[in-house]
Amino acid sequence: MSKIRIGIVGYGNLGRGVQYALRQNGDMEAVAVFTRRDPAEVKTVFPVKTERYEEMEKYVGKIDVMILCGGSATDLPKQSAQVASLFHIVDSFDTHPKIPEHFAALDAAAKAAGTLGVMSVGWDPGLFSLARLYFGACLPVGKTYTFWGRGVSQGHSDAIRRIKDVRDARQYTVPVESALERVRRGEEPDLTTREKHTRECYVVAEEGADKARIEREIKTMPDYFADYDTTVHFISEEELLREHAGIPHGGLVLRSGVSAAGSKFLEEFSLKLESNPEFTSGVLVAYARAVYRLAREGRTGAVTVFDIAPKYLLAEDEGTQRKELL
Amino acid sequence: MSKIRIGIVGYGNLGRGVQYALRQNGDMEAVAVFTRRDPAEVKTVFPVKTERYEEMEKYVGKIDVMILCGGSATDLPKQSAQVASLFHIVDSFDTHPKIPEHFAALDAAAKAAGTLGVMSVGWDPGLFSLARLYFGACLPVGKTYTFWGRGVSQGHSDAIRRIKDVRDARQYTVPVESALERVRRGEEPDLTTREKHTRECYVVAEEGADKARIEREIKTMPDYFADYDTTVHFISEEELLREHAGIPHGGLVLRSGVSAAGSKFLEEFSLKLESNPEFTSGVLVAYARAVYRLAREGRTGAVTVFDIAPKYLLAEDEGTQRKELL
Repeated sequence: MSKIRIGIVGYGNLGRGVQYALRQNGDMEAVAVFTRRDPAEVKTVFPVKTERYEEMEKYVGKIDVMILCGGSATDLPKQSAQVASLFHIVDSFDTHPKIPEHFAALDAAAKAAGTLGVMSVGWDPGLFSLARLYFGACLPVGKTYTFWGRGVSQGHSDAIRRIKDVRDARQYTVPVESALERVRRGEEPDLTTREKHTRECYVVAEEGADKARIEREIKTMPDYFADYDTTVHFISEEELLREHAGIPHGGLVLRSGVSAAGSKFLEEFSLKLESNPEFTSGVLVAYARAVYRLAREGRTGAVTVFDIAPKYLLAEDEGTQRKELL
Repeated sequence: MSKIRIGIVGYGNLGRGVQYALRQNGDMEAVAVFTRRDPAEVKTVFPVKTERYEEMEKYVGKIDVMILCGGSATDLPKQSAQVASLFHIVDSFDTHPKIPEHFAALDAAAKAAGTLGVMSVGWDPGLFSLARLYFGACLPVGKTYTFWGRGVSQGHSDAIRRIKDVRDARQYTVPVESALERVRRGEEPDLTTREKHTRECYVVAEEGADKARIEREIKTMPDYFADYDTTVHFISEEELLREHAGIPHGGLVLRSGVSAAGSKFLEEFSLKLESNPEFTSGVLVAYARAVYRLAREGRTGAVTVFDIAPKYLLAEDEGTQRKELL
C-alpha cells in the first residue's frame, strides 16, 4: 500500500515534532517542508526537501495532507484557508475566542476547493476537548474542570523576556494541588483564576539589574501574572540552560457529577508530557491520517476533532480495532 | 422539538439506571419497559409503562431507540439481533472474545431491517476502549495498560455465593498501587495477572460453617481467584448490608510512550464510580442519542463507539460544542 504523503508547513518545534512523529507512523511519509525562510537554511531533523512557502502549488497531486505548524497569532489565520485552497490540511489553531471565525474561513476555503481541513488539533484544544465532550455527554449533571501544567508557557516566558534587563526566562504554570483535591472529592467548587494555578518564573537578569523591580513588574503584569500567585526565582544563565531547557507540559480534565439516584462519579483525564510540541505533533499526525481517509470518502470543508469518528485515527482496520481495543 | 423516545429492554440495575439517566437528558424520554417477567410485578423507579418482551412489536413507530439492559451471557446474544430487527438499539455487550460474532449477528439483523445498532457501550467496553484507541493513535510507540477497580465484580461475588455454606458475598477487584506507579514512571513493565490486581472478598458464612474450607475453596478457584492474591474476610450479614450494599467500580487506562526524539509521555484516564450500573446507563443514553441521529442520516447495521463521531453524543449543536468545549 502506498504511504500517505505529508507536507509540513512551518518548521519550528512543531514542524520538527511532526517529522519525529511521522517516523513512528509507518503508513505515512514526509514529502517536503515549506518555509518562509530561506529553504537552504532550514536544518531538518531527518533528510527531507525544503521548499519556499510560495512553491507549494507545485506539490498538488504529490502531497495528500499538509500539516500546518505555524502559530495561531499570525500564521494560521492566513495560512489555514490559503493552504486548504490547494490541499487537505490539519492545523493546531488555539486562539479560543476566534475559533468560530477560523472555522468559517477554513470551511469556506475548503468547500470552494473541494478539500477537507481539521482545525484545532493537539492536546488542548484536541484531546482535552474530547475529554470535555465525552465526560459531559455521559454525565450531564456535573461540573468540568481543566487544569494545565506543570508545564512551560511560551507566551508567559516571552512576556517576562520583554521586561527591561531580563536576559532569558522560563515560566511554569502549576495546578494548585488543593484545588485538584477539592474537585476530586466532588465538591464542585467555584474556583477563581488564582485558586486554580500558580505561576513559577525562572529569570536570568542582566548583570547589575534591579531584581526587585523586575520581580515587581512580573508580579503586577495584567492578564499574565497579576491574577495569580507568582513566584520569581533569579538564576544563572547556566542553570536555566541546564535545568529548564525542555518544553514539558500537561494537565488534567476532570468532571465530577451525580446520577438522578444520588450516586457520585469522577471522570479524570491527564497528560504528562516531557515535550509539548512532540506530543502535539503526534496528535496532528494521527488526525492527518483521519483527514486523508475522510477526504477519500468525499468529505469537504472544515471539521474539528468532534466531527471525526475515532476509527479514522488508526491505521488498523475496523475488525482489528474491535478485536484488540474494544 | 419532540423528544427522542426510548424503550428499555430488561429491568435490573441497568434498566433502573437508564430511567435515572433519562431524567438528566431533557431531549429524551422513557416510553416503555419490556420485560420477560410479569409486567405487573416490575416496580420502576419512575412511572413508566411495563410491557411483555413479546409485545415490543406494537411499539414500532412509537419508540425511536431501544436500550438493551440484559446480560451478556445469555440475554444479549439473542436479544440484540432480535430487537434490532424492529428498532435501532444500544447494547452493552461485554463478552470480549465474542465481540466479532456479536457484531456480525447484529450487523446482519440491522442491515436486513434498515436499523442501526451500537454495541458494547458502557465504560469498559466503551469509554475505556475509546481511551485505548485515542491514546494509541496519538502515541504509537508505547504500551497501554487497563486496571479495574476498586470495585465490585458481580461475577466473582456470584462465584463465591455458589460455594457450600456461603450465605452472601461481595468481591472487590483492586488495582495494585505499586504496579500503577511503575506504569506511571514509564517503565513499561510486563505485568502478570497477579501483579496487576488483588481480590478482596467479604463473605457471610452460614452458622457453624467450616470457614477454613470456604476460604480455601475461594483462594484456589481456577480462573476466578487462583491467579490472584486474594484476601477473605468473614463478616456478619448485617455488616455486609451496611458496608457493602453499593456497586461501586472504576478503573484506569494508562499509556506511556516515547517520541522518536526520546521524550517520554504519560496518558491517563480514570473513573471513580459510586454506582457502576448508573454510570454505565449514562453512557448508554448518550449513545442512544447518537444512534438516533446517525440513523436519521441513513446509517444502518452494527457500529461501536469507534464508529461514532463525538459530536453525535451531545444535544447541543455543533457551533455551541465548538464554542464551549473545543
